Amino acid sequence: MAAENVTVTVTGKRQREENGLSDHPGISAVIPGWFSEISPMWPGEAHSLKVEKILFQAKSDYQNVMVFQSSTYGKVLVLDGVIQLTERDECAYQEMITHLPLCSIPNPKKVLVIGGGDGGVLREVSRHSSVEKIDICEIDKMVVDVSKQFFPDVAIGFDDPRVTLHIGDGVAFLKAVPEGTYDAVIVDSSDPIGPAQELFEKPFFESVAKALRPGGVVCTQAESIWLHMHIIEDIVANCRQIFKGSVNYAWTTVPTYPSGMIGFMLCSTEGPSVDFKHPVNPIDENSQQSTRPLKFYNSEIHTAAFCLPSFAKRAIGSKAN
Amino acid sequence: MAAENVTVTVTGKRQREENGLSDHPGISAVIPGWFSEISPMWPGEAHSLKVEKILFQAKSDYQNVMVFQSSTYGKVLVLDGVIQLTERDECAYQEMITHLPLCSIPNPKKVLVIGGGDGGVLREVSRHSSVEKIDICEIDKMVVDVSKQFFPDVAIGFDDPRVTLHIGDGVAFLKAVPEGTYDAVIVDSSDPIGPAQELFEKPFFESVAKALRPGGVVCTQAESIWLHMHIIEDIVANCRQIFKGSVNYAWTTVPTYPSGMIGFMLCSTEGPSVDFKHPVNPIDENSQQSTRPLKFYNSEIHTAAFCLPSFAKRAIGSKAN
Repeated sequence: MAAENVTVTVTGKRQREENGLSDHPGISAVIPGWFSEISPMWPGEAHSLKVEKILFQAKSDYQNVMVFQSSTYGKVLVLDGVIQLTERDECAYQEMITHLPLCSIPNPKKVLVIGGGDGGVLREVSRHSSVEKIDICEIDKMVVDVSKQFFPDVAIGFDDPRVTLHIGDGVAFLKAVPEGTYDAVIVDSSDPIGPAQELFEKPFFESVAKALRPGGVVCTQAESIWLHMHIIEDIVANCRQIFKGSVNYAWTTVPTYPSGMIGFMLCSTEGPSVDFKHPVNPIDENSQQSTRPLKFYNSEIHTAAFCLPSFAKRAIGSKAN
Repeated sequence: MAAENVTVTVTGKRQREENGLSDHPGISAVIPGWFSEISPMWPGEAHSLKVEKILFQAKSDYQNVMVFQSSTYGKVLVLDGVIQLTERDECAYQEMITHLPLCSIPNPKKVLVIGGGDGGVLREVSRHSSVEKIDICEIDKMVVDVSKQFFPDVAIGFDDPRVTLHIGDGVAFLKAVPEGTYDAVIVDSSDPIGPAQELFEKPFFESVAKALRPGGVVCTQAESIWLHMHIIEDIVANCRQIFKGSVNYAWTTVPTYPSGMIGFMLCSTEGPSVDFKHPVNPIDENSQQSTRPLKFYNSEIHTAAFCLPSFAKRAIGSKAN
């Protein structure tokens, strides 16, 4: 996820200087020595991580990019003030956003990743031996470069020879894709305010549907049921119109994301039917567990991810099935 | 949950005074105007809520008790610096810690709650029409009084005529209980540092087992798999020795608890077997949904709660069944 510039309540220039933060305008001075994630997307609350050392800080053509060493969550990647990943819990997001769609269809061969410049989704896609071609379209080259430098265990995904990296706009890339190209599209996007807004709107979903083969699947980052139910209801309504196969909502725990969880929309196009709740292509067996075992995903948690609390079920459940 | 006194990195007396917080020593001045939850139980991270108004602040015989109006989570109950409940998300914890055990056995009649002085667990137990007697043993009367004053929708649980409130030590109360008295015991405890430490140790679990009828069940707050796996492994090992029926671990999302989730140990004594993963006593039908529908719990999320991420499954899954 990424978001707009965060609103930071600074405590004064002098205090920032006293705390040695004056050279790092991107780090919040709200808690001296801590990074605090404050955003209009989750007003009235903030999660903070203690900073050991800022490792990288720069402004790309698209956003502020920061990497810091936290005291208890390993290295942390921050875009425009919003935590994208920490070494300690990235497994939950990357494994779930990837294997929920890829384990739901038999023998995925061609996969497109929109966003995901850190390489973590690629790392997970590459566990699937049936996959022959992995395209990734990331808008910000700096995210790729920074990930390769500071998160080698995540960016290892780029090393797979099946991967082709396209630096550019995902919306434009998708429009140019020949109809029916991909078995699966994974949208590892930022929040729907700012640059990523288009990735939550109808024309984008239409492009995704067109790029998928009949019975192909998409999985897109879809916010938290605790914080953004209205956004989710809109996404579900759009997807219901566009994807004529199945439309489902799933979620996972991710401690360093707002509200401690993140959701996904999982949809399929008209064609061979896809029952997302019952994976037909389990990865537990076919992954190279000996070298790098799955940390989070398994077939039971796949099915469990589609079970929603009653308040969410009432709001979106009936629409989502 | 409650915990030890929190370690608060204050930013100086003058700044506290400038922020108007000097009269409220219990509120963190880490983010001025915000409550920040900092504890040695989750070092290096903090969740913060914006404070609109402090409604209550006092020191009981056991702990610091605070209630504040937050800007986006409703009223918040804080004990010794640790968030116990917010009006916005309390449903998740209260419904899950109650219905996971009570929906797993047919016709629960006698239920004991240890802790839970806010009344929320009582409110949920009272949905079960089979229940004839509900005992609660809470050590701190101030928690009960404050909940009745500021959280009437939670403390409503005390209004049920089947409830008997005992103010006292849960460990001592349990020792005096005649063998085989209860169908279910729910331990709505604080964290295992400080006063509640005993509630995570073997002698306490032995008392619980003794107080339960054959095939009776216990559900106890059991921390987060993201933060406290070593504590959980110890609890599982203890329970495996003491409870000769089944021993299981489940979890739920709670945004305002550390890491955004909380877990539960669910165990049964020797006797009629209990399959916690498949509820035999669904509440969806028999609760008075018309007056106060369940917000979070349903039978699907009951079963899903027992599905663990692979890293947790490897550590505790094999031990837990």
